Amino acid sequence: MPAATSRTAAPALPGRGRLRPLTLDEVHLTGGLWHELQAVNGAATLDHLRSWTERLGWVQAFTDASAAGTPADRRGREFTDSEIYKYAEAVAWEAARTGSPELLEHLEKLAATVGSAQAEDGYLHTAFGRPGQPERYSDLAFGHELYCAGHLLQAAVAHARSGAGDAWLQIARRVADQVCDRFGPAGVAAVCGHPEIETALVELHRTTGEPRYLQQAAMFVERRGRGTLPPHEFGAAYFLDDQPVREAQVLRGHAVRALYLAAGAVDVAVETDDAELLQAVLTQWDTTLARRTYVTGGMGSRHQDEAFSDDWVLPADRAYAETCAGVAGVMLAWRLLLATGDARHADVVERLLYNVVATSPGDDGRSFFYANTLHQRTPTADTDPDGEALAFGGGGRQPWFEVSCCLPNVARLLASLDGYLATADDQGLQVHQYASCDIATDLPAGRVGLQVRTRYPDEGTVVLTVTEAPGWDWTLSLRVPSWSRGRARVTVDGVEQAVGHDTAVLHGALPAGTTIELVLNTTPRWSHPDARIDAVRGCVTVQRGPDVLCLDATADQGLDLDRVAVDVAAGLTATADGGVGITLQVRPDAGPRDGDGLPYGEAPHPAADAEQRPATLVPYRRWGRAGSSTMRVWLPTA
Amino acid sequence: MPAATSRTAAPALPGRGRLRPLTLDEVHLTGGLWHELQAVNGAATLDHLRSWTERLGWVQAFTDASAAGTPADRRGREFTDSEIYKYAEAVAWEAARTGSPELLEHLEKLAATVGSAQAEDGYLHTAFGRPGQPERYSDLAFGHELYCAGHLLQAAVAHARSGAGDAWLQIARRVADQVCDRFGPAGVAAVCGHPEIETALVELHRTTGEPRYLQQAAMFVERRGRGTLPPHEFGAAYFLDDQPVREAQVLRGHAVRALYLAAGAVDVAVETDDAELLQAVLTQWDTTLARRTYVTGGMGSRHQDEAFSDDWVLPADRAYAETCAGVAGVMLAWRLLLATGDARHADVVERLLYNVVATSPGDDGRSFFYANTLHQRTPTADTDPDGEALAFGGGGRQPWFEVSCCLPNVARLLASLDGYLATADDQGLQVHQYASCDIATDLPAGRVGLQVRTRYPDEGTVVLTVTEAPGWDWTLSLRVPSWSRGRARVTVDGVEQAVGHDTAVLHGALPAGTTIELVLNTTPRWSHPDARIDAVRGCVTVQRGPDVLCLDATADQGLDLDRVAVDVAAGLTATADGGVGITLQVRPDAGPRDGDGLPYGEAPHPAADAEQRPATLVPYRRWGRAGSSTMRVWLPTA
Repeated sequence: MPAATSRTAAPALPGRGRLRPLTLDEVHLTGGLWHELQAVNGAATLDHLRSWTERLGWVQAFTDASAAGTPADRRGREFTDSEIYKYAEAVAWEAARTGSPELLEHLEKLAATVGSAQAEDGYLHTAFGRPGQPERYSDLAFGHELYCAGHLLQAAVAHARSGAGDAWLQIARRVADQVCDRFGPAGVAAVCGHPEIETALVELHRTTGEPRYLQQAAMFVERRGRGTLPPHEFGAAYFLDDQPVREAQVLRGHAVRALYLAAGAVDVAVETDDAELLQAVLTQWDTTLARRTYVTGGMGSRHQDEAFSDDWVLPADRAYAETCAGVAGVMLAWRLLLATGDARHADVVERLLYNVVATSPGDDGRSFFYANTLHQRTPTADTDPDGEALAFGGGGRQPWFEVSCCLPNVARLLASLDGYLATADDQGLQVHQYASCDIATDLPAGRVGLQVRTRYPDEGTVVLTVTEAPGWDWTLSLRVPSWSRGRARVTVDGVEQAVGHDTAVLHGALPAGTTIELVLNTTPRWSHPDARIDAVRGCVTVQRGPDVLCLDATADQGLDLDRVAVDVAAGLTATADGGVGITLQVRPDAGPRDGDGLPYGEAPHPAADAEQRPATLVPYRRWGRAGSSTMRVWLPTA
Repeated sequence: MPAATSRTAAPALPGRGRLRPLTLDEVHLTGGLWHELQAVNGAATLDHLRSWTERLGWVQAFTDASAAGTPADRRGREFTDSEIYKYAEAVAWEAARTGSPELLEHLEKLAATVGSAQAEDGYLHTAFGRPGQPERYSDLAFGHELYCAGHLLQAAVAHARSGAGDAWLQIARRVADQVCDRFGPAGVAAVCGHPEIETALVELHRTTGEPRYLQQAAMFVERRGRGTLPPHEFGAAYFLDDQPVREAQVLRGHAVRALYLAAGAVDVAVETDDAELLQAVLTQWDTTLARRTYVTGGMGSRHQDEAFSDDWVLPADRAYAETCAGVAGVMLAWRLLLATGDARHADVVERLLYNVVATSPGDDGRSFFYANTLHQRTPTADTDPDGEALAFGGGGRQPWFEVSCCLPNVARLLASLDGYLATADDQGLQVHQYASCDIATDLPAGRVGLQVRTRYPDEGTVVLTVTEAPGWDWTLSLRVPSWSRGRARVTVDGVEQAVGHDTAVLHGALPAGTTIELVLNTTPRWSHPDARIDAVRGCVTVQRGPDVLCLDATADQGLDLDRVAVDVAAGLTATADGGVGITLQVRPDAGPRDGDGLPYGEAPHPAADAEQRPATLVPYRRWGRAGSSTMRVWLPTA
């Protein structure tokens, strides 16, 4: 039962655009995968984040910073403040969702702790500006000061939109005012090395109505790509400082930086009605999806700089595909959906939610993938529940990382997930994601309510029952996922309806009690890559509904994934638990060999004598949950 | 004309082992590719190294360090001393090769500069131990102090072996003594984060006869892998500190570190007659060649940590394959050849020399590849002759890098290249590499001389004329490269001889005037990868003699290398200049597409309507020399 009555509890709340998001007060998940993930997030992950950040002294940093003289003891990297803010944002959405007074009280206390470190002029960061610390804004490239400020603003917006008071908002407004004073028209023409403040300032503008915040966000967007940041060994593209946002053709550089910046640019474009800027981001996004995105939706293939690589460079091995990039991709695609109403953006949200975001957290909610490889060659190591992984990638889910951005990022998304399911416009309601949930909102025509029940994605049937209706005609739009186009069926009270290309649009009185059944075709399907993706030439993967599947071989199974090929002709068999049966061939071990011992030779690797055996693919998000394992998403064809 | 009469001018001089290396006094390159590379090295690269290291203040660092009080002004990273030492080693070999009095004088002066920074107790490093600098050995993991000391020892050994006096040797002995005092049996049981001192101490032992240096080297080898270094985000394998050298099964971690350590372990094993240690390295090397080596011989596929990846992870895109790893691979394979006499180690030396080492330097000797990718997707950028590349990899050859280890490393190898062509034992002479050269050495039976003339590798015929002979029977062994096994012919004065598996062994009087003709089969050949190398599935490459070939498309050629496939059935045609003609098919642009815009779809990428066109492959080492280009070594099959 939500305690707050705010009609604004939504993770993004544009003032314009094609669709209006429904809030956490208007949509409630009631069951299924997302509900379960959310429950684990609330029951375990938030506590996990609290105890680790306290143990590591990242909260204490605020208390210490409020008393002069101890900055030398500050622990953690220069961006740990942001983890506290993302955690606070997650708690705020969880409070909005559950109405928990304990969480609200905790947030008030945390606001007091954070606020105690705020300078008189509004500046707030625990690692800069005090005696013995670097000066404020002395390292815009890597100091992450505006990045941290951005996350603080987002936490405050979440808290305020949840109707829980203005304790965070007061701090955030003073932070934002100081940023505007410093970097405004009369200030320093600079940007932060890590975008984030842009989208945060627009959201704060949306919540407070202050035009200055929007203007500042627009300035930050326009300044990017004009070489104000210093040279970097990874190149100016790392910071997206190589090309102005309006001129770039594709996302590049550090994936999370690129996606946060694009989200901010969409926010600015929407609020300022700037069609050119919106189109620029759309073009970049389309090209990024078409040439630089893994089949899981994962983005940013490189470990070295956590960056997008060149077109078509999508190695399955050591795919970086940072979890944060998945969260940021959802933020961007969601904003584009709201701005344009184009259903394919909801397709991308779905792909990312099922295959990146849901993959990261372990079943216990206390371990996480930071990188999301598509091919695990060596068996994952067991996780030490008290261990902190120094490395970002490889191996199994880890309880913590030296850079732990992904954990609270997943938490804030899962806590607000109800807000990504449906939207409204003046004519009616649009359901974009399928999960058991209850929906109710006010349309201009009157109040509508909808009960959605489904075993999606294991089954493709979704039953929607109208619980309230305005009394005259309204429109209910149901997204047809890209993989079910031309293969979806809809009935209204048993009567078959026409289904459009990417949407089933139902228009009429649709009174309370109306039952709508949407049947999506979740028959497993092969997926072939563009031949320009060298890394997976001659391979296929299997998808089933929104899930990408993988071959997950537990270490005790004795299956050498380096030697398998799949017999495509033998077909695919759906299993009851969302898996897919296939037929494998296991190649002999001996390959070609040069005379000097290298694995190349004048004859191809022999395929003869391959042993035939059945195997079951599981949804990618489930990999590594049954103990130490190797895994591959792409299967060579026999 | 060599000025020195030393019989010791060889880059490695084991006291035991199967084969004795011939020295720079005994072998002289006279023409062909290696001679040309050496000429450019002597005429341009050494000057380039001198002017850059002076311009960057890396030489001045020694002068400054000798006067107290200015260490804060020291420029460059903590390992720049080593670049001066590698440069000095290159100059020493060049002096030995050419007898240049100017070079010898330059080396004497440089010794004085370097020596001026040496502490009273022998310690020598410009970045540690003075007021305002970190304490000596306070950062063994990354301080590179012993690494730099190792390169100093190698420079001194080269200088001494060239018979040019002991100015460097005096400095080096005091450095080595200090190292032994500090890290010896009564000292600190630690190792350096970057192996190098091990092989250097053995070489210094070989030159001075001091047993303490060998013992210290053995101690460093045995201590490695026992966790004396601190945790690192890339894992203990990065430093090879994860497993003792005797127990490891494969090379892993940072490739150059791994190869230098293995070279040092072979040196220790040979001098201490430790068959177990030698076998351990042989096992690691065989597995590394069989599972972790590019077709070019390149090693270490990862950019992030410049490291070996898991077995079979050999992406052509962004292959790191650092030039230094090529140099270190030659060092290791050469030591194994001397120790075992097994011709396949000479095969590996050849592959590395032609395809990694020769690829790095530009035609001007003033630009270099640091990384040696096997697939360049975006056109290489023009090189700024005054520019310093911050990034290690990507793009074209660069004049300098922030970390510029590869440049003097190539220089010291090219200057001493004569020393890698041939060896002797009590029975006779072994020719391992084919290039026009003159060879003369003393066997127990008497003096032998050989004139070698060839247009190798463009042609496979090698003519060897005996110029001196002992007067009774001796043995001449000619390596049959792995790619010509079963396809090589040898005649002695026109009479066909039997040819063994990997060697043609000629035994007899072979008096002066005897003409031996070796004909190797350089017909171009397809090369297929082991199917476990996912990155090049469905691809072939072409090799011709020792050269790996590539498709190098200059930017103005309009050939999109993302869309090409090779028609294997259309065959291969050797061209006069070492190239190979092939037939390409150019695929249409449109690939499969998911409904949400990702490059995956239910049908494979169509191959229909591919346009047919001829193309010429060039040796990989020539790529990027004709201006901005894209390139690929592995070609998808049509």
